[in-house]
Amino acid sequence: MGSEVRRSSCYLGLDLGGTNIKAGVVDDSGRPLSSVSGATRAALGPEAGLDILGEVATRALAAGGVDWSEIAAVGLGAAGTLDAAEGRVVDASNLPGWDGFPLGPRAQERLGRPTVLLNDANAAAFGEYWAGAGRSTGSLVLFTLGTGIGCGIVESGRILEGRHGLGGECGHMTIQMDGGRPCSCGKTGHLEAYASATSVVRRAVEALEAEPDSSLRASLEDGSLSCRVIAERAVEGDRLASRLMRETARCLGIGAANVMQTVDPELVLFGGGMIAAGSSFLKAIRAEVSEHASPAVSGRTRVEFAALGGEAGFIGAAGWARKATIGP
Amino acid sequence: MGSEVRRSSCYLGLDLGGTNIKAGVVDDSGRPLSSVSGATRAALGPEAGLDILGEVATRALAAGGVDWSEIAAVGLGAAGTLDAAEGRVVDASNLPGWDGFPLGPRAQERLGRPTVLLNDANAAAFGEYWAGAGRSTGSLVLFTLGTGIGCGIVESGRILEGRHGLGGECGHMTIQMDGGRPCSCGKTGHLEAYASATSVVRRAVEALEAEPDSSLRASLEDGSLSCRVIAERAVEGDRLASRLMRETARCLGIGAANVMQTVDPELVLFGGGMIAAGSSFLKAIRAEVSEHASPAVSGRTRVEFAALGGEAGFIGAAGWARKATIGP
Repeated sequence: MGSEVRRSSCYLGLDLGGTNIKAGVVDDSGRPLSSVSGATRAALGPEAGLDILGEVATRALAAGGVDWSEIAAVGLGAAGTLDAAEGRVVDASNLPGWDGFPLGPRAQERLGRPTVLLNDANAAAFGEYWAGAGRSTGSLVLFTLGTGIGCGIVESGRILEGRHGLGGECGHMTIQMDGGRPCSCGKTGHLEAYASATSVVRRAVEALEAEPDSSLRASLEDGSLSCRVIAERAVEGDRLASRLMRETARCLGIGAANVMQTVDPELVLFGGGMIAAGSSFLKAIRAEVSEHASPAVSGRTRVEFAALGGEAGFIGAAGWARKATIGP
Repeated sequence: MGSEVRRSSCYLGLDLGGTNIKAGVVDDSGRPLSSVSGATRAALGPEAGLDILGEVATRALAAGGVDWSEIAAVGLGAAGTLDAAEGRVVDASNLPGWDGFPLGPRAQERLGRPTVLLNDANAAAFGEYWAGAGRSTGSLVLFTLGTGIGCGIVESGRILEGRHGLGGECGHMTIQMDGGRPCSCGKTGHLEAYASATSVVRRAVEALEAEPDSSLRASLEDGSLSCRVIAERAVEGDRLASRLMRETARCLGIGAANVMQTVDPELVLFGGGMIAAGSSFLKAIRAEVSEHASPAVSGRTRVEFAALGGEAGFIGAAGWARKATIGP
């Protein structure tokens, strides 16, 4: 009888990125019983990918001391545009050669448990909603600051997936229509062109030409310049690093304000390596939200850092599988 | 028995703006059986407003040949920020002195039928979704171009009201963070600062200083310059008017793109007097959406003009009341 209870209350979450797969067994309250990872080796293609996924999943179960029979359902978060209803990869630049692959059904076949497929940024947002910084809220938006800017929206307890699985692609909203910076997607003036970790480093490299005496110069020369280094130098008081982080906070505050004006969430969260910049960075983002959003919105919406770090994706995927299994 | 069927299938929609009240009886399929209007006289305050509301409602019933006993429910769309759950006006700049007034419950008491309160821009969006240009879709965004830019979002068949009743306030999203135009709300760079009917006229006045030979000059001098006049002159080939409408289309395309990147609707609609600019204006908006949104989004989302004109608000309010009464 005890094992019956446990059987119905364990979920496997998988977070399939272009570089790494993270996985963990998660209990009914959103607590991870294990947390493992492995290389995706996406270039080997989706059939090999299924083998790797199965291997990482098996390790996650072993690390959690859980048997497959105890897994009620599997949630699989994956990078890119997905057809959630069909469980198919539509367009995933980080998973070359996987476009069109019926990843959801094939993973279900391989793992032998009911499997739901969802976008990885949406999974992370649902993780924070279910078991992280948003666990007492009804709606939130999570921005994850990395190579790009991932974004996921939870509204009335559901992921806002949108008509074509493209809900929450807020990194590509335009915040500077005239004279905007080029974005990785080929357009200009998008939030991601200013405030992803990659863009912050690019802006630092450009700015170092005019301000060569910044402490960032040495990092550029020894190849260690990263967004985390810039965030740390800002905390230490480097003038250029501080200005870059201030400008980044401004762009993120505008992005947050724009999403608030659209979906009016209870909470906006920021996650990713950049939050190492700490509380002064968070305060700067909040000030910029107030500067750009209507007071009715900015005065009522909390802005915080995310809480689950790199585990948000697999926890949220597991939570979404749980929701699909047991309902709201 | 025939009258029983009719009784359960008629709804009264009210659209309470700062200047006018529009009202109509709407049948179960979204067809208006009547359409009347009257002056709001908002400055007289909410108690007098209830009398006026009651009078307009009675006229709407008479014009539709419908008795109060045949009205299953009433939907009341009102300008401003509302607490939908409590049916209270929170902050309505167009209804001075009404802040805090429990408009929903008091209107229900006055009219004697179950009454739901909702934001007027949301009501218009729901009207287009239920019975207008979006009647075959599951989700849409409606931008209404007037003194300001109203916006409403319907997602999975529900109005996206947001946590604080502020969902779909997209006129105040930032599209130009550096060097943006001042907005009526006191911030800068908002969509409304560029593309509301009022802003287009303001931009025309500014531009006429540099281009005094435009045919718009005479309209400015005789006091007839309006957004509709500018739109018409653009169709006739006036160079300045054409440029103004092209720039307006650009801003609206960016606003539409930003909302698409966030909620990924099936359809984006534009309504209001400005759509008199016709199909070339619509084509220009679509081209700008493609220019600024990700191809995955812009290639899959329809952009059209709204279909219900000034009746969208009361039709949608009636439809929302119907949904509240009979469920999805």
